[in-house]
Amino acid sequence: MVRPIYLLTDFGHQDIYVGVMKSVIHQIAPKHPIIDLCHGVPAQSILSGSYQLKAAIPYLPAASVIIVVVDPGVGSQRRAIALELDTGHFLVGPDNGLFSDLADQFGVKGLVNIGESPFNLSQSSHTFHGRDIFAPNGAELARKGRLKDLGPLELKPKLVSQDGVVLRIESRVWRGTVLHIDHFGNVITNIENLAGNLDEGLFSVLGHHFQGARTFSDGRLGDYLLYQGSSGHLEMGANGGNLARDLDIQIGDHLDILLLDS
Amino acid sequence: MVRPIYLLTDFGHQDIYVGVMKSVIHQIAPKHPIIDLCHGVPAQSILSGSYQLKAAIPYLPAASVIIVVVDPGVGSQRRAIALELDTGHFLVGPDNGLFSDLADQFGVKGLVNIGESPFNLSQSSHTFHGRDIFAPNGAELARKGRLKDLGPLELKPKLVSQDGVVLRIESRVWRGTVLHIDHFGNVITNIENLAGNLDEGLFSVLGHHFQGARTFSDGRLGDYLLYQGSSGHLEMGANGGNLARDLDIQIGDHLDILLLDS
Amino acid sequence: MVRPIYLLTDFGHQDIYVGVMKSVIHQIAPKHPIIDLCHGVPAQSILSGSYQLKAAIPYLPAASVIIVVVDPGVGSQRRAIALELDTGHFLVGPDNGLFSDLADQFGVKGLVNIGESPFNLSQSSHTFHGRDIFAPNGAELARKGRLKDLGPLELKPKLVSQDGVVLRIESRVWRGTVLHIDHFGNVITNIENLAGNLDEGLFSVLGHHFQGARTFSDGRLGDYLLYQGSSGHLEMGANGGNLARDLDIQIGDHLDILLLDS
Repeated sequence: MVRPIYLLTDFGHQDIYVGVMKSVIHQIAPKHPIIDLCHGVPAQSILSGSYQLKAAIPYLPAASVIIVVVDPGVGSQRRAIALELDTGHFLVGPDNGLFSDLADQFGVKGLVNIGESPFNLSQSSHTFHGRDIFAPNGAELARKGRLKDLGPLELKPKLVSQDGVVLRIESRVWRGTVLHIDHFGNVITNIENLAGNLDEGLFSVLGHHFQGARTFSDGRLGDYLLYQGSSGHLEMGANGGNLARDLDIQIGDHLDILLLDS
Repeated sequence: MVRPIYLLTDFGHQDIYVGVMKSVIHQIAPKHPIIDLCHGVPAQSILSGSYQLKAAIPYLPAASVIIVVVDPGVGSQRRAIALELDTGHFLVGPDNGLFSDLADQFGVKGLVNIGESPFNLSQSSHTFHGRDIFAPNGAELARKGRLKDLGPLELKPKLVSQDGVVLRIESRVWRGTVLHIDHFGNVITNIENLAGNLDEGLFSVLGHHFQGARTFSDGRLGDYLLYQGSSGHLEMGANGGNLARDLDIQIGDHLDILLLDS
Repeated sequence: MVRPIYLLTDFGHQDIYVGVMKSVIHQIAPKHPIIDLCHGVPAQSILSGSYQLKAAIPYLPAASVIIVVVDPGVGSQRRAIALELDTGHFLVGPDNGLFSDLADQFGVKGLVNIGESPFNLSQSSHTFHGRDIFAPNGAELARKGRLKDLGPLELKPKLVSQDGVVLRIESRVWRGTVLHIDHFGNVITNIENLAGNLDEGLFSVLGHHFQGARTFSDGRLGDYLLYQGSSGHLEMGANGGNLARDLDIQIGDHLDILLLDS
């Protein structure tokens, strides 16, 4: 399979930012399919961008390039990098915490600082490295398939990690962090692998009762539910409603989930 | 022509849901183009999803696969299906009313229940059948072009139909249902094939005067207009404005259109 | 390279309008990649559409077709046109001011009025020329690569120009027009090529102080900044915030930028 190029950004859909990135990529690597993962990461939310990348990666072929641009520090001292996971996936983007979770989970084969890559567009801007740095280097990586063609390889790289993430699991209280809120208002936390404990349980979060469930359509209309979401993370939703709006939950919030009965 | 795969969902653009579906499809059917019809169907609105599918289909080649995911009942008892219209189009999605209008209009050659299809992703989730069931079966269908490769064929299938749709045409009063509201605030109804009656007519809807017209830019800025929209349905709009917002019209509303003069 | 087809519209993402255009194009020109530039131009804003086209074009290959649909006058007397710039780019869309800036800047080789093109879909609607006129003619142009195949060529065409644009540069006061507001709330003006004057300067706009900068992440959180944006235009933003929302700035506004110190 020709190596596809995936895009994940917070650029939204009002502007040509994504379209111009695709045009730059297509001119360098016209045979490589470009697949939008998502461009609706909340503006500058590294927490949500990092989660979405992690949730997507089991469904992306190892022989692929994933360009991620959530980049509040563009033009500052933060590094622009390309790296290869031990799984074979190539990641391209800013070194600001977006990649640290995946690097910890899967291991990193190598990393290149592409801030001065020969493939950067000439007259690179200070505000749009998606177009000027990440797109051309991602496209070259898709064509060549070798990280070292972009520059000198670091073999034991240290990545910038994320701030503000809390996770503490005790028998009857789980404290976690909201990583993402989806289009339907479902609230996705950093608590994983608890599926066995959810069914039939009764929980309390923010003073409201939540029923353990298999999916957001269990129970009756309006019920608050707690279930294992499609990424394996603990997720909360309202049957037929928008939970995040109801309870004013934001990305980055810390939540205590109390187990009442099971 | 290689059979293209169209996607129509209510997944919006904040999440990786659509991107992951595309990635699953692309890995199974890398030569088949994937074309986004729309991912902005209002959350869980079967009425709008069904209308948008019907409005699109005259412009989709018969040799195509259309995956539609508006699925409030995911994980419940509703069937996951793939069917072939007599036109040759393949439709893949939940059996919840999305497909009943088209099935009535064009006829159905056959249907397969894909809830237990061998092509479903292993460890299928309870919340994301777009990724786990509809994407892989749609991709296999595009490659193979034969419904029966997905499972046992039902030849006279009965589909779940839609609720809440009213349509009654009398000489001076037309009662219809709002199927969709577009990005510009234009209001699209289930009343069809009345073009001959619109020109020069004067109408009353919700206590406001509407002028019969050819297009939403007829008349003067701010005029309320009633015209045959691009899908052949009766449509209402405000020249230069947003009619649905002005008059607080929602999808699913029943409207009486009174013919005052013609 | 096979000639790609770019799309730039104000159709948004709630509807099948863009998807149906792509389907029409794909059936005519299945080998030609279709690349979305942007579909989030503010509804009927010719100013923003024209700016976005101009900002994108340095990144689009000369051998490409760009279909632009921001078309408040669809169905009225405005012309539907296809033209070739002296750079080789083909532009397809309504003649309503969208193309006049580019035509002035790069020169026009020729133009065809496609309102009655033989490639228009039969039974063309009055409301959706994107589907019925611009998509099929754009696709034919991509395949054939020759404007005159669409109809009789005008060699010295006169294009409709834009209204409401002000630009006056004096030594200590720059008066300009807001062309676009991006997803991050950054405000993009029609003032160009002033980069040398920005660094270290202190400015006043709408009664607020702005610091001259290299990028929107300079200075401290909350600072108002004035810098050369990624399209070379003078741009204003708030570090970590949304400037347009803060100061209630709209597309089309005229702004006076006072140079206090440099």
